[in-house]
Amino acid sequence: MTRVTSQLSISLDGFAAGPDQTRDDPLGTGGERLHGWYMGGSGPRHPADEAAARSILEGNGAYIMGRNMFGPIRGEWEGDWRGWWGDDPPYHAPVFVLTHHAREPVEMEGGTTFHFVTGGIEEALEQARAAAGAADVNVAGGASTVNQFLAAGLIDELTLHVSPVLLHAGERLFDGVGDVRLEPVDVAGSPAATHVRYRVGG
Amino acid sequence: MTRVTSQLSISLDGFAAGPDQTRDDPLGTGGERLHGWYMGGSGPRHPADEAAARSILEGNGAYIMGRNMFGPIRGEWEGDWRGWWGDDPPYHAPVFVLTHHAREPVEMEGGTTFHFVTGGIEEALEQARAAAGAADVNVAGGASTVNQFLAAGLIDELTLHVSPVLLHAGERLFDGVGDVRLEPVDVAGSPAATHVRYRVGG
Repeated sequence: MTRVTSQLSISLDGFAAGPDQTRDDPLGTGGERLHGWYMGGSGPRHPADEAAARSILEGNGAYIMGRNMFGPIRGEWEGDWRGWWGDDPPYHAPVFVLTHHAREPVEMEGGTTFHFVTGGIEEALEQARAAAGAADVNVAGGASTVNQFLAAGLIDELTLHVSPVLLHAGERLFDGVGDVRLEPVDVAGSPAATHVRYRVGG
Repeated sequence: MTRVTSQLSISLDGFAAGPDQTRDDPLGTGGERLHGWYMGGSGPRHPADEAAARSILEGNGAYIMGRNMFGPIRGEWEGDWRGWWGDDPPYHAPVFVLTHHAREPVEMEGGTTFHFVTGGIEEALEQARAAAGAADVNVAGGASTVNQFLAAGLIDELTLHVSPVLLHAGERLFDGVGDVRLEPVDVAGSPAATHVRYRVGG
């Protein structure tokens, strides 16, 4: 049975992105500080961060993301926006983008194809499951999309990469998700982040 | 040099107490769920929880707490409230209680004496340092007191016991503390909580 997983980098005060997201600043003010553990510094990554970074794209047969994660365009599609990730996005799998505005699929290099789903999270999950086969479906973000899936009880495993920074504003994980059952099943840490994997529901 | 430390149990969404704290429900609605890892279940505690529980009262020569942590009385003192902890509180050391209302010290069994400080956090810290000698001063809580100390840059080490529960409301750690520098120095976990020790400032 396909598992539905999600991994998010969040601040110690619970934000998955800073305020004032724009095309030039897609993570919002201060949001890039959430990913310091992933980007690394001048030297190699700490082994705990290296393992966490590797796990993000591992074992996934399909992805789901919110439209704000895919791009900065709101309302009707215009131009030929093809995501933030260049010609060869890191997903190498079908990516189902939640949107209110239909669009033909966009095929990229390396096996990534963006599909646009207008029927909501359950329809996106159905299509992603069909595409993933026996592999996992990963809800890539952002926070509001992950919150929708949590609220609907559709996530099986949530991994949080908690960066030791405070943002004080932005998109908050767990906003409005109700009483979700979570159990930590794995924890690892470095000076740059604490990585905790939770089993959800059940 | 005396270190100033603090340890708090918080929810995964960042609350150190639930909403609607009362005399019958000092941790607020749902707040007791933050302490499940400490209270244990039917069996013995997980080793990670046992070590974390033991560390809370270890190495401290004096404590500081907010008045709401000491008791439910607001305004002028009335009656003979002597804390939530019975005749022999677990501190076995001087405890400096922040209040706007002067009161004579209250000596308990086992070496705990409650002192009432009306001059604010810096005066409380000065008195606690003098009492602690070479041992640590521990800021016991609640969240608003810890936030005041964090905002003033007076905490050296903060340990968070993150329980895998969502409260959605209550007293939020890190509210209004500004840009505090934190670095994780130790992490351990169990199915009941994730324990992270942070070096603060510097």
